[in-house]
Amino acid sequence: MSNGDIFVGEVIGTAILILFGAGVCAAVTLRHSKARASGWVVIAFGWGFGVLAGAYTAAPLSGGQLNPAVTIGIAVDTGKWGKVWIYLLGQIVGAMLGAVLAYLVYLAQFQANVRKEGTAEDTAEEPVATLGIFSTIPEIRNPVANLITEIIATMALVLPILAFGLTKGLGESGTTVLIVSLLVVGIGLSLGGPTGYAINPARDLGPRLVHTFLPIPNKGTSDWGYAWIPVVGPLIGGALAGLVYNAAF
Amino acid sequence: MSNGDIFVGEVIGTAILILFGAGVCAAVTLRHSKARASGWVVIAFGWGFGVLAGAYTAAPLSGGQLNPAVTIGIAVDTGKWGKVWIYLLGQIVGAMLGAVLAYLVYLAQFQANVRKEGTAEDTAEEPVATLGIFSTIPEIRNPVANLITEIIATMALVLPILAFGLTKGLGESGTTVLIVSLLVVGIGLSLGGPTGYAINPARDLGPRLVHTFLPIPNKGTSDWGYAWIPVVGPLIGGALAGLVYNAAF
Amino acid sequence: MSNGDIFVGEVIGTAILILFGAGVCAAVTLRHSKARASGWVVIAFGWGFGVLAGAYTAAPLSGGQLNPAVTIGIAVDTGKWGKVWIYLLGQIVGAMLGAVLAYLVYLAQFQANVRKEGTAEDTAEEPVATLGIFSTIPEIRNPVANLITEIIATMALVLPILAFGLTKGLGESGTTVLIVSLLVVGIGLSLGGPTGYAINPARDLGPRLVHTFLPIPNKGTSDWGYAWIPVVGPLIGGALAGLVYNAAF
Amino acid sequence: MSNGDIFVGEVIGTAILILFGAGVCAAVTLRHSKARASGWVVIAFGWGFGVLAGAYTAAPLSGGQLNPAVTIGIAVDTGKWGKVWIYLLGQIVGAMLGAVLAYLVYLAQFQANVRKEGTAEDTAEEPVATLGIFSTIPEIRNPVANLITEIIATMALVLPILAFGLTKGLGESGTTVLIVSLLVVGIGLSLGGPTGYAINPARDLGPRLVHTFLPIPNKGTSDWGYAWIPVVGPLIGGALAGLVYNAAF
Repeated sequence: MSNGDIFVGEVIGTAILILFGAGVCAAVTLRHSKARASGWVVIAFGWGFGVLAGAYTAAPLSGGQLNPAVTIGIAVDTGKWGKVWIYLLGQIVGAMLGAVLAYLVYLAQFQANVRKEGTAEDTAEEPVATLGIFSTIPEIRNPVANLITEIIATMALVLPILAFGLTKGLGESGTTVLIVSLLVVGIGLSLGGPTGYAINPARDLGPRLVHTFLPIPNKGTSDWGYAWIPVVGPLIGGALAGLVYNAAF
Repeated sequence: MSNGDIFVGEVIGTAILILFGAGVCAAVTLRHSKARASGWVVIAFGWGFGVLAGAYTAAPLSGGQLNPAVTIGIAVDTGKWGKVWIYLLGQIVGAMLGAVLAYLVYLAQFQANVRKEGTAEDTAEEPVATLGIFSTIPEIRNPVANLITEIIATMALVLPILAFGLTKGLGESGTTVLIVSLLVVGIGLSLGGPTGYAINPARDLGPRLVHTFLPIPNKGTSDWGYAWIPVVGPLIGGALAGLVYNAAF
Repeated sequence: MSNGDIFVGEVIGTAILILFGAGVCAAVTLRHSKARASGWVVIAFGWGFGVLAGAYTAAPLSGGQLNPAVTIGIAVDTGKWGKVWIYLLGQIVGAMLGAVLAYLVYLAQFQANVRKEGTAEDTAEEPVATLGIFSTIPEIRNPVANLITEIIATMALVLPILAFGLTKGLGESGTTVLIVSLLVVGIGLSLGGPTGYAINPARDLGPRLVHTFLPIPNKGTSDWGYAWIPVVGPLIGGALAGLVYNAAF
Repeated sequence: MSNGDIFVGEVIGTAILILFGAGVCAAVTLRHSKARASGWVVIAFGWGFGVLAGAYTAAPLSGGQLNPAVTIGIAVDTGKWGKVWIYLLGQIVGAMLGAVLAYLVYLAQFQANVRKEGTAEDTAEEPVATLGIFSTIPEIRNPVANLITEIIATMALVLPILAFGLTKGLGESGTTVLIVSLLVVGIGLSLGGPTGYAINPARDLGPRLVHTFLPIPNKGTSDWGYAWIPVVGPLIGGALAGLVYNAAF
């Protein structure tokens, strides 16, 4: 795979992943969305099928890693670090592009997210916080616990992926992509409760940058004080998964 | 594939797709349905498995495209336009047939959708609007935003389909059809909130024609003022996906 | 396949199907069940994965048809009627066995389904109707409409199955069984609203016989007046699917 | 497969299974979890995709049995008992490890599970019972009925697995692992209502040991009086499945 193909593949694939992922968070969060308040099962399947769409699309170009933690895990396992920077660059650019696309899909909903005239006392009409559509927010703010959650949840992603043989190239087996996407659904259902399961530094950092710079009405804080956890935790988890894989398999 | 096979395949496949899709909207919307108010996850999986059923059935005859946006995307990609009109014709006829079948499945529910004697003040007994069972209705009526939503959501359908290699013929791989159907579930979960995700001109136009002409009690408006958006948006999105695919892959 | 293998395979496979199907209806209906009132999506996936479990188990013995409507559809398509009676016999015996097994799984729940002393006015403590756990009940009792619903819903099952090439033997492809099971999930989600989607004469008749003869506390009526519709409708639908398949493919 | 590979594979695979399974119970049960009260469908898919993740990861090392009932069923079927003890040892160690990992993922939630100062009368702020996150609790305590439920539910797991040809090694087919995981989803949806479907002695016993010894705030009873049922029931069910398989296939 050429450097150009890897970059384009990771940009397109990660953009699709975040389009679906931020999209499903917008769908469940924003008023005037048909999927409003439709629950955690919708969130988890939306993110999982975003992996399906993004990884399958990117597979012929870049193998469809879409996640720095996966890239680091593969590099630790294989010892090949030469192209890691291209993957990471494509992933962060793609994540930002995907967040903008999700914003455009829900443009009218974001624009309507304002306090209505004469309804000040109707809390149902207060603007909703938008950061949770773009990036993760912990339910309980506890750096050590949040970091542990992200490390273990990312290991639960990357260790199976390594065992699935993804290092041989995602494009070779449709079933493998499907299984990884259902694995991501499972991580969301089971391990997403405390922090919202970033398990992917690009997935959190890219949309947070977009949230910071995009002129979204009533967007609230971008919470940069928390931003290091969903970057550092998944990187540690991915590297640990690579080490465990090398030791056990 | 002969012209006759293509036409018959697209009619049968699109009819099954719309039977499931309009069916699940009826299931969730109408009173006296066991699935009433069962939520967005039911809508999204119902439409997705309609794609599964329709595309798999049509695959040996026509390849199972079932969607003018997919057909246009493939034509833009391959440059082969000669049989496009047969696909489109079969898709629109099939969509109308499917809408009639869904109406027949819920016949007693549609007939019971009237104001009950002596219960005028019980709003739960008011007739429900039926157009949403047949065609899409935006949550916020904003032509520019609605068009953007349909364009991006359709690109998120057609670009992965092109990358999946559907141009080689759907019939060759059961896994591919399964993945496309889960992709459609994902689009519904993630990108369906603002407009109800037509992402298919035939899916919206065919049932809207049926809604206009069928003598359904208390059917309400067929809302033709909106009808161009779920036709034009998906066609633009499908063509753009073909262009992006040609440029990037 | 020998007659004995066919019979044993259909008995085991249909028993597993009904164990899961009646089981999920019990899970959602009965008090003191962890899945109580968990909604239509649980019903539809429970039945679908019952097809997965039953058809996959039966496949090496009988091909895993598990449904007289499927058997009739295949016979109409292929013209081979010689072993149809063995399939039907196995299916009805298996359906009865499965209903008994589901009753045993929820034994304590069925036994607790009585009016509590001193709580006569608490309607939440009234016994729940048990027939819906075993057999289908229409939401609106209208023989013509109910029959149409079952005919179309069964065609939506059998026509795709014929197109999937199930006549070549279910055992040859794991993906095919998976797709059929998701097809059944889709039929439940989309077409199950009016009648509860029997789409299988054995699925309705076998458990209704068990409901009639088993000494279940407060079981209520077995509603034999309706019993012919979920038998005749699916048989017509299966035969029509065979005819359409022969004509179109 | 060497004894060491089997042990390591079963430890890792069962740990992943219980991480997801106990994780999803924590997600739905504990306060300050984003998935709180998200329903039975989340529980069932969380456990099923835990099987997917664990079995796929363990497959190249040990075949990914992860369940003493499966191991016993295969031994009864094949007559090979020599390595059973290694499987069982790995499974119980893995289940304990997985329970500790799930506890760590939800560490802040467990620590917050205390009575709030000055809110004694707000029952919503009472500590929740934690045993149900680790091990199964019957809805109605009735040893005979609970045992029957676990026996039948485990047969519904192991008989299809034997028929799927898992004895030939899970690693040979990605589709097989996927189907087994959806089978487990189905068992949860359909047969989990009465006892919470242990269907796996290690899944219940390992986490119960961890619950007993881990210093969890307000953890409540570990209910050892019930602990024999989710061990004995699944073992009987697995052995019966092996016998039925040998007789019928």
